[in-house]
Amino acid sequence: MTDQKATNVHWHDGEISRDDRNRLMKQKGVTLWFTGLSGSGKSTVAVALEEALYERGHLSYRLDGDNIRFGINKNLGFSAEDRTENIRRIGEIAKLFVDSSIIALSSFISPYREDRDKVRQLHVESNMPFIEVYVDCALAEAEKRDPKGLYKKARAGEIKNFTGIDDPYEEPINPEIHLRTDQMTLEEEVDTVINYLEQQGLLDADRQGA
Amino acid sequence: MTDQKATNVHWHDGEISRDDRNRLMKQKGVTLWFTGLSGSGKSTVAVALEEALYERGHLSYRLDGDNIRFGINKNLGFSAEDRTENIRRIGEIAKLFVDSSIIALSSFISPYREDRDKVRQLHVESNMPFIEVYVDCALAEAEKRDPKGLYKKARAGEIKNFTGIDDPYEEPINPEIHLRTDQMTLEEEVDTVINYLEQQGLLDADRQGA
Repeated sequence: MTDQKATNVHWHDGEISRDDRNRLMKQKGVTLWFTGLSGSGKSTVAVALEEALYERGHLSYRLDGDNIRFGINKNLGFSAEDRTENIRRIGEIAKLFVDSSIIALSSFISPYREDRDKVRQLHVESNMPFIEVYVDCALAEAEKRDPKGLYKKARAGEIKNFTGIDDPYEEPINPEIHLRTDQMTLEEEVDTVINYLEQQGLLDADRQGA
Repeated sequence: MTDQKATNVHWHDGEISRDDRNRLMKQKGVTLWFTGLSGSGKSTVAVALEEALYERGHLSYRLDGDNIRFGINKNLGFSAEDRTENIRRIGEIAKLFVDSSIIALSSFISPYREDRDKVRQLHVESNMPFIEVYVDCALAEAEKRDPKGLYKKARAGEIKNFTGIDDPYEEPINPEIHLRTDQMTLEEEVDTVINYLEQQGLLDADRQGA
């Protein structure tokens, strides 16, 4: 490449680095790992956050059941082994997005502490920021919302091993962000996350809005 | 979100769409699928292309052995079944990047036509652009280069089922781009790809360079 020397302040071993990409994007790649009960509001806050970031000119991408369970993980079921592999793969994909400079928004119940901690460890080992967001909602409230009718089916025994009913949800011990969705407005939730990202220096202030 | 109505020209079902992201990024997400023999120059052209795109202010991300084989696909070996699953997962990940508006640069030998065609089909079904780039180099030349010493080991019988030696490479029948790396300079190769992307309307002309 004839121009390479002229601009080699950007170069790292002749290859574009994560820092280069972050500079281009005026943001730092980061994984926001939303975890909580079914119906707790993980997707709702992720969708609203995506919009708020977009308005500020920032690119995020949501990883959720629609694009993961029916895509790369369509060959996984719901056995203990497959659930662990499901979360592992999502963690690895989130890492790729972080490396590419994107704000990855992962919305899965991810009920087991050990699985979430493994994903955190994957990020830490690669010096990538990982933010666990506990989307906390009382079970009674989540069950009352029951947006997909899943609690009803679980109570009727039509779904087995349903988190919160006959399978445990292990609460995060020390999440970076704790959202009480049964006590906060959606706007408060989004502001809480945006403020955290800004405080951590993950969003450049001079990014031009969309 | 209080501002949503004011800017709803951007909105699709209340969620940020692929078109919205492409607009923000001033580029369209696309998969460039580099396929060819070991030593044919897939990674070399992908690295140079990444730099050329970066200079033009475009974000691309390379998927290669380093970040895939040692990450999400570390639980896969080299059996026929695992090789097919390897390519399937890479195809699904590339799709996620396309959806996020990134230019995905996939560099794997991917010797089997059926596997590559499945990845193409995955993209077509989701109305995502897929560009097969045949990185074409005579076997004798690739073997002469042998940058990782793999042909030597394959000839010595230390590696089995090595593409081009004792396992077939099935040439693309109708690739969108055909690079003869034993006859072109690296700059010519990069220009060929950039020109193709521009002709397909995948790069906005007004993107500010890095």
